[in-house]
Amino acid sequence: MASDPKRLADLRAELARRGWDGFVVPRNDEHQGEYVPPRAERLAWLTGFTGSAGAAAIIGDKAAVFVDGRYTLQVRNEVDCDLFTPRHISDEPLSDWIAAELPKGGRFAFDPWLYSENQAKALKKAVVGAGGALVAAEDNPLDAVWADQPAPPTAPILPHDLAYAGEASQEKRAALAADLCRRDLKAAVLSLPDSIAWLLNVRGGDVACTPLPLSFAVLHDDGRVGWFVAPEKLSADLTAHLGNGVACQPPADFLAALDGLAGQRVLLDPASAPAILFQRLEAAGAEVVRGSDPCQLPKATKNAVELAGARAAHRRDGGALTRFLAWLDREARRRAADGGLSEMAAAATLADFRREDPLFRDFSFETIAGSGPHGAIVHYRVTPDSDRKLQDGELFLCDSGGQYLDGTTDVTRTVAIGTPTAEMCKHFTLVLKGHIALARARFPEGTSGSQLDILARHALWQEGLDYDHGTGHGVGSYLSVHEGPQRISKLPNSVALQPGMIVSNEPGYYLTGAYGIRIENLVTVIESPGPGDGSRRMLAFETLTLAPIDRRLIEKDRLTAEEIAWLDAYHARVRATHADALDKDTAAWLEAATAPL
Amino acid sequence: MASDPKRLADLRAELARRGWDGFVVPRNDEHQGEYVPPRAERLAWLTGFTGSAGAAAIIGDKAAVFVDGRYTLQVRNEVDCDLFTPRHISDEPLSDWIAAELPKGGRFAFDPWLYSENQAKALKKAVVGAGGALVAAEDNPLDAVWADQPAPPTAPILPHDLAYAGEASQEKRAALAADLCRRDLKAAVLSLPDSIAWLLNVRGGDVACTPLPLSFAVLHDDGRVGWFVAPEKLSADLTAHLGNGVACQPPADFLAALDGLAGQRVLLDPASAPAILFQRLEAAGAEVVRGSDPCQLPKATKNAVELAGARAAHRRDGGALTRFLAWLDREARRRAADGGLSEMAAAATLADFRREDPLFRDFSFETIAGSGPHGAIVHYRVTPDSDRKLQDGELFLCDSGGQYLDGTTDVTRTVAIGTPTAEMCKHFTLVLKGHIALARARFPEGTSGSQLDILARHALWQEGLDYDHGTGHGVGSYLSVHEGPQRISKLPNSVALQPGMIVSNEPGYYLTGAYGIRIENLVTVIESPGPGDGSRRMLAFETLTLAPIDRRLIEKDRLTAEEIAWLDAYHARVRATHADALDKDTAAWLEAATAPL
Repeated sequence: MASDPKRLADLRAELARRGWDGFVVPRNDEHQGEYVPPRAERLAWLTGFTGSAGAAAIIGDKAAVFVDGRYTLQVRNEVDCDLFTPRHISDEPLSDWIAAELPKGGRFAFDPWLYSENQAKALKKAVVGAGGALVAAEDNPLDAVWADQPAPPTAPILPHDLAYAGEASQEKRAALAADLCRRDLKAAVLSLPDSIAWLLNVRGGDVACTPLPLSFAVLHDDGRVGWFVAPEKLSADLTAHLGNGVACQPPADFLAALDGLAGQRVLLDPASAPAILFQRLEAAGAEVVRGSDPCQLPKATKNAVELAGARAAHRRDGGALTRFLAWLDREARRRAADGGLSEMAAAATLADFRREDPLFRDFSFETIAGSGPHGAIVHYRVTPDSDRKLQDGELFLCDSGGQYLDGTTDVTRTVAIGTPTAEMCKHFTLVLKGHIALARARFPEGTSGSQLDILARHALWQEGLDYDHGTGHGVGSYLSVHEGPQRISKLPNSVALQPGMIVSNEPGYYLTGAYGIRIENLVTVIESPGPGDGSRRMLAFETLTLAPIDRRLIEKDRLTAEEIAWLDAYHARVRATHADALDKDTAAWLEAATAPL
Repeated sequence: MASDPKRLADLRAELARRGWDGFVVPRNDEHQGEYVPPRAERLAWLTGFTGSAGAAAIIGDKAAVFVDGRYTLQVRNEVDCDLFTPRHISDEPLSDWIAAELPKGGRFAFDPWLYSENQAKALKKAVVGAGGALVAAEDNPLDAVWADQPAPPTAPILPHDLAYAGEASQEKRAALAADLCRRDLKAAVLSLPDSIAWLLNVRGGDVACTPLPLSFAVLHDDGRVGWFVAPEKLSADLTAHLGNGVACQPPADFLAALDGLAGQRVLLDPASAPAILFQRLEAAGAEVVRGSDPCQLPKATKNAVELAGARAAHRRDGGALTRFLAWLDREARRRAADGGLSEMAAAATLADFRREDPLFRDFSFETIAGSGPHGAIVHYRVTPDSDRKLQDGELFLCDSGGQYLDGTTDVTRTVAIGTPTAEMCKHFTLVLKGHIALARARFPEGTSGSQLDILARHALWQEGLDYDHGTGHGVGSYLSVHEGPQRISKLPNSVALQPGMIVSNEPGYYLTGAYGIRIENLVTVIESPGPGDGSRRMLAFETLTLAPIDRRLIEKDRLTAEEIAWLDAYHARVRATHADALDKDTAAWLEAATAPL
């Protein structure tokens, strides 16, 4: 895909018609999700950039596209840099660009459906700081010039069975309603589709890789929910599943329904809810109380049924991945003579193995299958154009996951094709040391992921190395593969890790133009009885992911006795879990792949 | 000191006279400093509580005193709990108490000189959330009933010589003024006395342990400063030192001078500047721009002259402490027969040794000399009433520091009196492992102290233990022993550690009723050349403090080879630094105390 100059010209003409000097086009849709429906792919339509985060901005005859460190290479391949100047979203932020380009008194517009209140405030600060005025567009000018913009998605919505959800929607709603009452709140407006899917125990298919229906909802302090969702997505079965407490209404009625909250105290999350909802509620005379989406924390803290589902899903998913790794080892060697296996062929086989599972519903994100230098492109996606062969002496990084009815998986393995160099083994071992340090951590209740982050980086730092991405993200239960509020990251985050949270453990190292290394397992937070002075409750991680880590890439001498013991015990668990379900050849391969170091 | 019921009654009567339902008395003065002059000891006067942080609040016939974890024991010794209910300032915060006690429509007052804007906002949220109204007092009602309230201090102000400051005030002012111009600001209002002392290269003596004059200042974008300081503190010498760019004016003229900034963009720090300054500037028609005090970061990042001074001060201070530790070892043994050495006697001898130094000016804080269970009281101060003997089989924790013309020191050593128990040695060794892990850390530019904090706790956590205080605070250059903006702490803090910053490294462990352990050195951030892939600038710490760490408390088997190597190298440095300056007996003691493990 490349930038189409006509689209930019049409948008400029529309801005001029409206008397606006500037406009910003974010990747976000109304729901701030990672995946957006085709209708909301405004950034890609305008610029050609297909990454999962970013924005474009236009001021007069200038235009720029802002992307983060994951996409600095990709943006130059996808976007016509004569039309859009690529900029690093944090080193060269939009605010600086607005300050430089916006004329004094200039009118800079944005779509208040696509910006959370916090984002809108930051934008306003930038625009006003540049001496301009921020304009909230009543309708999106890009939509006005996008003639063949797709319609909103209408995938059918299905009940999410209690056998997987573990708690009835009615109970969840009653608990949240009681909390609203305690806080003297009459209602909470929900704009995050995964919050709504969790609350109502429903799943859908409006976007790729995440089984959620796009919708808005209002939760009242008596547990009733007004659900603003397209009627085409509903069925009689679903209506029965929802029960009397949920009133389905067309999305077009949503804003007007907010006016009915006049005079009431209403909870809204400034970090995720569209700015327009705040404006509308306040204009209607509601008292907006700003606070976190009330579903986020209970959703992140999985119940016993969800955890049992996660363990089962990971056993099956790890089995598929183990079969794939064994197959890859054989095939890469066999095809070395005729130029090697391709990235696409490898990813396709892994997909086939996952699809065999009857509970499999989708991939949890587009598989990253990067050989050699592609491995160093942190969010590389293989396409027919980019596809390359796995060659001897290279590393192959494969980051993939599945959506199963009982759980969501996300796993990265990096394997040697042929014989690795000493430098590859050194770097792999440093990443592994970080992975093990985090996996083994024991920490007091109240500890946040930010506090733990350094455990995954410390070994790399001692060698002057690091990686430019987070160490761990929350993971949903047959929901988003990236969910909050917890996070393991360099960035400050004060959400305490709590038993039942699922989070990834994924340190890496990337040598641009050469190779990428990442070792990712999902873990869940558990109680950690054991030594102590009785004054604190201690927590730890249980690793969920069960697939071998490439022993050929490990420099054993760099590992401590405790690190070796962890890896050997992990591999013994992997072997014991999968051995019986595998064919003889694969079982033999696994035996060797999981032998003690 | 105990609570005087008459004072509380007088204050209640004054509140009633003014028609106020509640009032809050913080420990802070106008300058948010750790040490306040006698005039500002309102919290101690009212309640008897003498800790360095906290607040009291009165609503109707209820009163409470709010203190942090350091002071939960002390507050019960000092305060009459029938008059003031002691509450934990974060677990049972003032906001909860206001919500419970303030009648709907109640008027709750505060002194806007004693609250930063951020603090005032939080207070307003609590009061309004409780259905009340927050009133900014025009004058402090406690001052109105404190008949013999001391006058403001008037200690003479002295020039801080360029040989210690390393950069002329004129250059500092020019650099900050250029920065104001770049940010389109006309002036910055300074309320932190250590910022002003740094900027003007002056030192004073208005409060204990910190050589600073209390004052306010306005820095203009041409480098001129309006300094609002009591004329009694000035001398002809000082005026000459200040030069033409600094206009001294009486403090009484300060608020009126702010009115002169009408129509201008003025920088003010909402985290430290009194709320009244914001009100006054905005009422006068100035445009207040909220941002960090512009002196904080350059002050924290010591220049080469200041670092040379810090190293020299630490050599001498470490020499005094080494002599003390040798003396303590002999005396504690010698006096064991007649009941032991007392905490006060020990602290007095250490003080004498420090005072011998010609550059010594003061202690940097009140020495903590806690034997046995006193060591577990994190901010214990010995008094004639609390004094106890150092007894065989106990630990003695001594945290102390000096103010020297060339630098500020802060060091804690924990030593065994007689034979320690195995449990003491285990705990000491875990604390030492944390201390060494932080001392040895190598980290990329951009890393904050929050990210490193866990290094100091990790070994304790694995045994289910922790400590309830920060790991490291910034330290000034012949200025405050606690300064920002950097910090090593569990709490989120996004200030990157930069070369030249000085920070403490002080993990600990406390067993209530038994003993306390803390090992504290000051360190400075330095460049760390060495291994890397060339993509990042790496930093590390240089330890400044030079005094032996008690080898008798170390379980060698718990240390790794790298940890032993660090300690042996540190001890070799201590020995090499001090050996020549010591008498024969002390040198022999040091030889043994610093022998390789």
